[in-house]
Amino acid sequence: MRRIDAIEPFRVMQLLERARELEAAGRDIVHMEIGEPDFAAPDRVAEAAHRAIEEGHDRYTPSTGLAQLKVALSEWYRREHGVSVVPERILITPGASGAFMALYLALVENGESVLLPDPGYPCQRNFVRLVGGEPISIPVGPDTRYHLDAEAIGRHWRPDTRAAVVTAPGNPTGTLIGRAELNALAGACRDRGGVLISDEIYHGLTYGEAAISALEVDDDVVVVNGFSKRWAMTGWRVGWMVVPERLIDPCRRVMQNIFIAATTVSQYAALAALEADDQVAEMVAAYDKRRRFLLDELPKLGFQIPVAPQGAFYVYAGTSGLTDDAPAFCRDLLEQCGVAITPGADFGSHQAARHVRFSYATGMERLREGVRRIAAFLP
Amino acid sequence: MRRIDAIEPFRVMQLLERARELEAAGRDIVHMEIGEPDFAAPDRVAEAAHRAIEEGHDRYTPSTGLAQLKVALSEWYRREHGVSVVPERILITPGASGAFMALYLALVENGESVLLPDPGYPCQRNFVRLVGGEPISIPVGPDTRYHLDAEAIGRHWRPDTRAAVVTAPGNPTGTLIGRAELNALAGACRDRGGVLISDEIYHGLTYGEAAISALEVDDDVVVVNGFSKRWAMTGWRVGWMVVPERLIDPCRRVMQNIFIAATTVSQYAALAALEADDQVAEMVAAYDKRRRFLLDELPKLGFQIPVAPQGAFYVYAGTSGLTDDAPAFCRDLLEQCGVAITPGADFGSHQAARHVRFSYATGMERLREGVRRIAAFLP
Repeated sequence: MRRIDAIEPFRVMQLLERARELEAAGRDIVHMEIGEPDFAAPDRVAEAAHRAIEEGHDRYTPSTGLAQLKVALSEWYRREHGVSVVPERILITPGASGAFMALYLALVENGESVLLPDPGYPCQRNFVRLVGGEPISIPVGPDTRYHLDAEAIGRHWRPDTRAAVVTAPGNPTGTLIGRAELNALAGACRDRGGVLISDEIYHGLTYGEAAISALEVDDDVVVVNGFSKRWAMTGWRVGWMVVPERLIDPCRRVMQNIFIAATTVSQYAALAALEADDQVAEMVAAYDKRRRFLLDELPKLGFQIPVAPQGAFYVYAGTSGLTDDAPAFCRDLLEQCGVAITPGADFGSHQAARHVRFSYATGMERLREGVRRIAAFLP
Repeated sequence: MRRIDAIEPFRVMQLLERARELEAAGRDIVHMEIGEPDFAAPDRVAEAAHRAIEEGHDRYTPSTGLAQLKVALSEWYRREHGVSVVPERILITPGASGAFMALYLALVENGESVLLPDPGYPCQRNFVRLVGGEPISIPVGPDTRYHLDAEAIGRHWRPDTRAAVVTAPGNPTGTLIGRAELNALAGACRDRGGVLISDEIYHGLTYGEAAISALEVDDDVVVVNGFSKRWAMTGWRVGWMVVPERLIDPCRRVMQNIFIAATTVSQYAALAALEADDQVAEMVAAYDKRRRFLLDELPKLGFQIPVAPQGAFYVYAGTSGLTDDAPAFCRDLLEQCGVAITPGADFGSHQAARHVRFSYATGMERLREGVRRIAAFLP
C-alpha cells in the first residue's frame, strides 16, 4: 500500500461539507462538530498585526522563529509553569501541525514506530504514516482518563519505537493527566531510549485544575503547543515546540527546508497574544459554562460520560443504548434534525462505533438548540 | 544513515550568520548571497491585509485555500498564460516550500526516485530525501541552459522514478527554457508514467522573453509557484501548486493533516497582489538594470558566464582561473573585504567548487560597492 492510501480522510470534513450543503439549501444547522474556537482572537492580536504591517515586518524571519517571540515564550514558561527553557530550545512553526510534521521528520525513520492513544487526535497517526513510520494505536479508556500509562508503554514498546504521545487536555476526550502519571510516562519513554511527545495545544483551556506541562516533570521531553486554541488564533498559523538540545539542529534543518519560516506578521501577532490573559480568561469562563451545560444535559439524553472532561472544548460520549453505529447516528442527526456532531471513528477504532464527540466551540443558545433537537430526535 | 543525516545544512546560512557577526562587530557587508527580494511587497498587499484583519478574516480557510484566491489564480492563468485551469486543481500552500512538501509526500514513496538538475535549488534534493525518496542529481551545463532535457530523462529514468524537476528561470542559474524543450521534457516524463514538476517560483522576474508555464505545453504536469519572489511577499508565506485531477485528493489529504491551511490574512493579501502588475513591473526594471551591470562587470573581473541569465535575480558564474576552491574563495571574500556570495556547493556537486552564485536582490549602489571590493580583492 502506498503511504498516501493509509491517510484516511476526516469524516468530520465530509460531515461539515454536507452541513454546508444543507445550509446552502436553507437549513439551519447547529455546529457541534467543529474543533475551532468560535471566539475572536484577543484585541491585541489584530493591533499587533496592523503595527507589524505598518512597520514593514514582512520579510522572512529566521527559520526557527522571531527571536523576540522565542524569548517571550521562554519567559512565559517560567511564569506559567515555573520551568526554565532557553529560547534556543523553542522552535516557532506554522501552527502546531507544522511542529508535528518537522518533529516526526526529524525523529522517526522509515519503519520505526510511535505509540499513540486510541481514541486520539487523528492527524497524529497520519503524521507518523506520512514519514513512513508505524503508528501503534493503544486502546485507552476511562480507567486512565483516556491516556497512555507507564504500564501500556511497557507492554507495547518495541525495539523500533521512538516515542509515545500524550495529549492532555485530550482531543476528543478533554481529560487531564496527573503529575505522577505524566512523570511515569516520561520516565517509561526515557528508560527505553525514546522520548515522550506532549501535545499541549489545549493547555490554558481548563476548567478548575490547570494542565501540567511535561516540562515540569522532565526536561528531556518534546512539547508541542500553539496559539490556535487558547488564544483563538487558528487562521494565523503559529505554533511552537520545545525540544531537548540534541533535537534542535535536526529540527532546524528540516524547518529550513520545508517551511523556511512561519508567517512573519503572525509571529508579531502571537507575541502580543501572550499579554492577553484577561481576554483568554473570559473565553475560558464561557467555555466552562457550556461544558457544565452539556455535562448536565447529555446524560439525561442517554449519553455516557464516564470521565468528566476538564479541558479543551469537547465532550466524548458513549452511545450504548442509543446506537452501536455512531457514523449512521451522526448522519441521521444531521439530515433529520440539523445537528452536526463527530462520530468516534475519526479518533481511532477502539469502541469507536459506540462513541461520538460533541464540540462546545459554539454559543450557549446554539448548544441549547442542539440539545433540544437531539432530545426530539431520540426515540 | 538516518534520513535527517542526509539533509545538508545550507552553506549560505553559515555564511549569512558569519556576515551578521561581522556586522555586529561594526563591519560593512555587501550582501550578494541572499535569495530574498529587497523590495517591499506592493502597496495593495498591506492594504488588503489591514482590511482582512479589520473584517475579522482570521479563522481557518479550507485546507486547499480561500475559494476567491483559487478562482483569481485560475483567471490569472488564463490572462497570463492563455491556459484553462479549473480552480479545483489549484491548491494554496504555506509558501512554495509547503507545496513541495505536500506534493512529495503525496507522490513519492520510500525508495522511489526523482530526477533533478545539478546545479539546482538545494531544498529539492532535501524534500525528496525527507520523504524517504532518492534524489538523482544529473549534471547539467550551458549546452542545455542548465536544465534537464529529454535525452537526460531517457538516460537516467529508472523503474522507480516518479518525476523530474525543471526550474526556469532557474536557481542558481537564472536561465529560461524554450517551449520545444519544455514540451519534450514533459512528454519524456509522461511517456514513462511519471510527471514533470515545473518550479515556476521565479516566473514574472524575467528580462526580455517571458517564461513559459509548463501548463502551456502539457496539461498533465505539476506546477509550483508562489507569491514570495515576483510579488516580494516572502514573509507572508503563500504559495500554490497546480496538479492534475488525479493528484487533487492525495494532496488535499496530506494538506489537511500537515498544514490545516495557509495563513488566512496572507491569503487575502495574496489576492490583492494579483492586481499589482504595475509595481511588479517597477521591480523587474530595477532587477534588470542590476543584472546588466553584473553581466558587464563580472566578466571583466575574470568570472565566466557562459549563458546570460534571463530571469530570477542570480548570476551563476564560473571561477576557473580565479579559484578551484569556491568555498574558501567565498570565505576569504567575506572575511577580507566584506562581500558575501554563495559557493556553488550549495546547489549540487557538479563542478561546484569552480562556481559561485551572485544575487542581485540588493540595490545598485551596493552592487557597485561589491564589485569594487571584489576587484580590489582579486590578484
